[in-house]
Amino acid sequence: MINQTEKKIFSVNEIDGGFELLFGNLKLMKHTKTSPVVFIGKGEENIEMYRGNFKIEDYLIERIALRYTKIESVNDNKVTIAFSNHSNTEAAIILTIKQDRERLKIEFNNVSDDVNRLWIRINSYQNEKVYGCGEQLSYFNLRGKHFPLWTSEPGVGRNKNTYTTWQADVKDKAGGDYYNTNYPQPTYISSDKYFCHVETTAYADFDFSHEDFHELQVWNIPQFILFDKAETFIDLVKKISDLFGRQPELPDWTYNGIWLGIQGGTSVVEEKLSRALDKGIKVGGVWCQDWQGIRNTSFGKRLMWDWKWNPEIYPELDTKIWDWKKQGIRFLGYINPYVAVDGDLYKTASQKGYLAKNHKGEDYLVDFGEFDCGVVDFTNPEACKWYRQVIKENLIDFGLDGWMADFGEYLPTDVELASAESAKLMHNAWPVLWAKINDEAVREAGRSGDIVYFMRAGYTGTQNYCPLLWAGDQSVNWSLDDGLASVIPAALSSGMCGNGLHHSDIGGYTSLHGNKRTKELFMRWAEMGAFTPVMRTHEGNRPYDCFQFDDDDESLEHLARMTNIYVKLKPYIKTLVKANADEGIPVQRPLFMHYENDEKAYNIQYEYLFGRDLLVAPVYKSSVTEWEVYLPNDQWIHIWTGKEYMGGDVKVNAPIGCPAVFYRKNSPYADLFQMISKI
Amino acid sequence: MINQTEKKIFSVNEIDGGFELLFGNLKLMKHTKTSPVVFIGKGEENIEMYRGNFKIEDYLIERIALRYTKIESVNDNKVTIAFSNHSNTEAAIILTIKQDRERLKIEFNNVSDDVNRLWIRINSYQNEKVYGCGEQLSYFNLRGKHFPLWTSEPGVGRNKNTYTTWQADVKDKAGGDYYNTNYPQPTYISSDKYFCHVETTAYADFDFSHEDFHELQVWNIPQFILFDKAETFIDLVKKISDLFGRQPELPDWTYNGIWLGIQGGTSVVEEKLSRALDKGIKVGGVWCQDWQGIRNTSFGKRLMWDWKWNPEIYPELDTKIWDWKKQGIRFLGYINPYVAVDGDLYKTASQKGYLAKNHKGEDYLVDFGEFDCGVVDFTNPEACKWYRQVIKENLIDFGLDGWMADFGEYLPTDVELASAESAKLMHNAWPVLWAKINDEAVREAGRSGDIVYFMRAGYTGTQNYCPLLWAGDQSVNWSLDDGLASVIPAALSSGMCGNGLHHSDIGGYTSLHGNKRTKELFMRWAEMGAFTPVMRTHEGNRPYDCFQFDDDDESLEHLARMTNIYVKLKPYIKTLVKANADEGIPVQRPLFMHYENDEKAYNIQYEYLFGRDLLVAPVYKSSVTEWEVYLPNDQWIHIWTGKEYMGGDVKVNAPIGCPAVFYRKNSPYADLFQMISKI
Repeated sequence: MINQTEKKIFSVNEIDGGFELLFGNLKLMKHTKTSPVVFIGKGEENIEMYRGNFKIEDYLIERIALRYTKIESVNDNKVTIAFSNHSNTEAAIILTIKQDRERLKIEFNNVSDDVNRLWIRINSYQNEKVYGCGEQLSYFNLRGKHFPLWTSEPGVGRNKNTYTTWQADVKDKAGGDYYNTNYPQPTYISSDKYFCHVETTAYADFDFSHEDFHELQVWNIPQFILFDKAETFIDLVKKISDLFGRQPELPDWTYNGIWLGIQGGTSVVEEKLSRALDKGIKVGGVWCQDWQGIRNTSFGKRLMWDWKWNPEIYPELDTKIWDWKKQGIRFLGYINPYVAVDGDLYKTASQKGYLAKNHKGEDYLVDFGEFDCGVVDFTNPEACKWYRQVIKENLIDFGLDGWMADFGEYLPTDVELASAESAKLMHNAWPVLWAKINDEAVREAGRSGDIVYFMRAGYTGTQNYCPLLWAGDQSVNWSLDDGLASVIPAALSSGMCGNGLHHSDIGGYTSLHGNKRTKELFMRWAEMGAFTPVMRTHEGNRPYDCFQFDDDDESLEHLARMTNIYVKLKPYIKTLVKANADEGIPVQRPLFMHYENDEKAYNIQYEYLFGRDLLVAPVYKSSVTEWEVYLPNDQWIHIWTGKEYMGGDVKVNAPIGCPAVFYRKNSPYADLFQMISKI
Repeated sequence: MINQTEKKIFSVNEIDGGFELLFGNLKLMKHTKTSPVVFIGKGEENIEMYRGNFKIEDYLIERIALRYTKIESVNDNKVTIAFSNHSNTEAAIILTIKQDRERLKIEFNNVSDDVNRLWIRINSYQNEKVYGCGEQLSYFNLRGKHFPLWTSEPGVGRNKNTYTTWQADVKDKAGGDYYNTNYPQPTYISSDKYFCHVETTAYADFDFSHEDFHELQVWNIPQFILFDKAETFIDLVKKISDLFGRQPELPDWTYNGIWLGIQGGTSVVEEKLSRALDKGIKVGGVWCQDWQGIRNTSFGKRLMWDWKWNPEIYPELDTKIWDWKKQGIRFLGYINPYVAVDGDLYKTASQKGYLAKNHKGEDYLVDFGEFDCGVVDFTNPEACKWYRQVIKENLIDFGLDGWMADFGEYLPTDVELASAESAKLMHNAWPVLWAKINDEAVREAGRSGDIVYFMRAGYTGTQNYCPLLWAGDQSVNWSLDDGLASVIPAALSSGMCGNGLHHSDIGGYTSLHGNKRTKELFMRWAEMGAFTPVMRTHEGNRPYDCFQFDDDDESLEHLARMTNIYVKLKPYIKTLVKANADEGIPVQRPLFMHYENDEKAYNIQYEYLFGRDLLVAPVYKSSVTEWEVYLPNDQWIHIWTGKEYMGGDVKVNAPIGCPAVFYRKNSPYADLFQMISKI
């Protein structure tokens, strides 16, 4: 026993031919010659991007098990272990294990430059569950599969067994798979109440398919690996958000109502808004992506990507925006980190050298689907400053109180950056650089706390710079991997990683390959949205193929009711959002977060606790009027009927307008919840 | 220069930090510390079989580059090289390079039991082309891709971009990919006029995608690797067939005409045969798969798999068979190496312990699609003897003059064999064991040279035991990877490996997922068949979804003409078949075999030379009446018009009935070919 005194948080115990690493009682590693925990190697990757979809292949030249260990030096808070692949050869890598605050930190040294692959095995056991890895849309419990961690388009279909996916693959290389996500993060959370974070921006692949270990693969030598643990999941998410950052509270105007996604120009916005208000829909904002102009492509309507008010489509917006604000309705827009070649911003950026370059030193153009864009080079401080200025002048000063800060996943790996950093290593970092630009622009404008932007792309650090996630582009259908259901694990997994505020496009977005949004899908999605931090509709990529909120009176009335529920819940939601801001406890939580002893709760990914006191089981299938729900052991009141349940598998009526929602009988908000049923 | 005297066929030259291996002037290896040629490692494979389709995954634990070499001992004909991964560690593997007749042989020694993966790099250069690897249906030139070598179902669709493949994958895990084949073989032939053969039955994967080397991966330590080279491709295929074996000549009755695939019973055979003969179709045999009974499944009609005459469906077959024989029409049947659980043979085999077992010691049952079968254990000499007896008594003595010896690819990898050999290592060996059973049964019956069976499954050694290949189960469509076209590279690649006799189901076989055989497809396939060693029709798996040869007069007349052409070509075809038997020169040859200096010829996979003097470019697209052909530099006569061409890209009329066929003006058979046009 090398390093174990009472004050030590970890110990490295020598065993026959190896060692065990314990973090408190948690056995993180057990290394022997026959089951080594560290492998190094070399690979030659081939990365091809097509419109944000990546084909990544690795020719693995070497992978060497480092079977021989020597515990080299022991300080008070530090153990150094030298690993080699022969008993008589030099160390191929040295791990320094040390205490860092209350965390356990592993650093890597002495690695040959020739090594560009590292695999670390962390101890596991058969019944362990694993969560996190950023925003995961197909699986909340990640056990049994491996998860490549590379920010990209999430895929259309995301399941090789669906016809949508196949068509998307064949036509656009865009089908994706269960692991594709805009927001990956090399951080997992174990059901054993610890988290493990790998500090790297390199391509990584976390493999949770083995019975005895998790194997974390990284395509460089990470800066470090960090572990922390807690007695409860609530404490654990606090620690996670302590590390990665927390989101501020949402502006109070958020709770005024839904953000209506409208496009088409000033008059369309006025008409639709007025109709919505007439029908009693509570509106917090209008969200107009096309405030800066549109272009038509085969994918559907696309935006102009030149990030300034388009007075042709939006006449008088410069005054209307302030009128609406007086009515309590904010105007939200859209921007992303690319500039279209046919725009003025591109010209400026190109002239000033603010764009990333190709190998010939020319501006690198990225294909975004029938139009090309320059990539604003966020490794160039001048370019960052300029883009912050664009946001401040063209968006904030113009009157926008929020926007979708879209994209961030498209940094090509063969681009030349001003900082001379490898684009392969900066690719995953890009979404966070993009978030930071937004964050700093808002701060510089002195508007923190009143402006809110929302992002789909992310990576480690997103927690610090992005105040609100949205789940990206779902297909407008009922598929588990890419439809309504998929946003639930997305909220839960990103929430576990410290992003406590999440929402999705009500109705979904992607209408391709025969998928058309139905009224039923829209209404089911809206009723789920009422039980999330933010309600926002999207017209879809092909609005004419998608049912719209104002397509008939029934859906307008349904939306009115749902927005009234949402607004009524404001006092409750605000406490949740505050708890997230203060302590990093996500607003949407997995059942096990409050029911740790409930084994079944650990595998539930299509229900969530909306705070401590509401259990939400959205109806994610078509043509049903009943819904089966699992309730942890507690006193639950079905919100629409007032019927009490004591836990277990229950079936409730769940016609449209009545998603399966329950509140805890003992909740301090029980009266509020009871009122909901009367709306 | 360690080993180079005038009599040596190879040399191993020490260079800085490594060596070069030369075989004559051919540089096979160049090893240095930074570009090593040998890697060893360990993997844990996961192999799942579903109805002959395999999902094979490898968790690669280690892959170690052996960078350090020591040339340890030198004899007259032998060089030994010790490879290690550190300068100061023991040899991890020792390669013995030696002369074996005129061949170069590399053997492997001193490998730890823990090693179950080997990778060898063979020198390559940018413009090299590579052929062989058994029977390859999607690519003749294998360069640019890797080829897993594992006998399996070939796949339905075989291209992940086709809807047929996707449906087959989703519904039956059966879509396959470009490399799936019934007959793989770890042997490749280089355009540099050498071949390389790896002696192993383990799973292998030959990777021809690298610019500077081919990397041969084997999931055990092979017995040896063999190289041979020649001055010409004709000499090279002689050497290949010297090594692997050659097929005997086909029985003379083969050339009497087509083998008509008929099912349904004695009366159906009589009716169809009589109609065919009336219409002037030349018939060499009737091929009745269901001579032993049928069962109906969702896949279509399946056979009884109890391998004996079924007198209910085939009354009087025991006498008719001899009547037909007198008319010059032979009767061919069907058998495979599995016995259905509901049959008598299964009972016998089970009682006598002739079946392969599961881990519990029970008979292992394999799912063949809605019915289960036992696997006759060919590692048990008694079982082999019994099955040969089944063939002799139930097939040969009954009067069959040929049969499809189907399957052989389905040996599960978790089966327990009598010999205690690993099923993972016997899986690839199985088709050859099955071929050998047939070969020995025919020999024991004293009927060699008069009986012919045909197989789709194969592996190294098939050349010795299988007198005729057929291309397996094509889809009844025009797809490149799985339709008519695919049998051409299949014939060429298997021909390069020493299997000079090849044919295919006229009209294709698999009618699934909406594919139905059209009249046009049948007629185009028939006209290609006339220019192969054997013509044989197949009803298809769903005959009612497939156009049949006798569905109308036009196709009967077309088939009559094509069989007459085939029969007329007999003198020519017989010389080709004899050249294959004597010298191993395949009947269907790639263009470069006779036009070695024609660079373009090396990439042509949908034309072939039918012997020295005929060039055949089958029409493999629908709805065309013209066809573009590449002709090497020679004097070519278009067979139907008599028009002369001097080579290059030409376009000819090719309506149905006139496939693009040319003969060499200087051929000794020019008169014969000229007559063909008059048929």
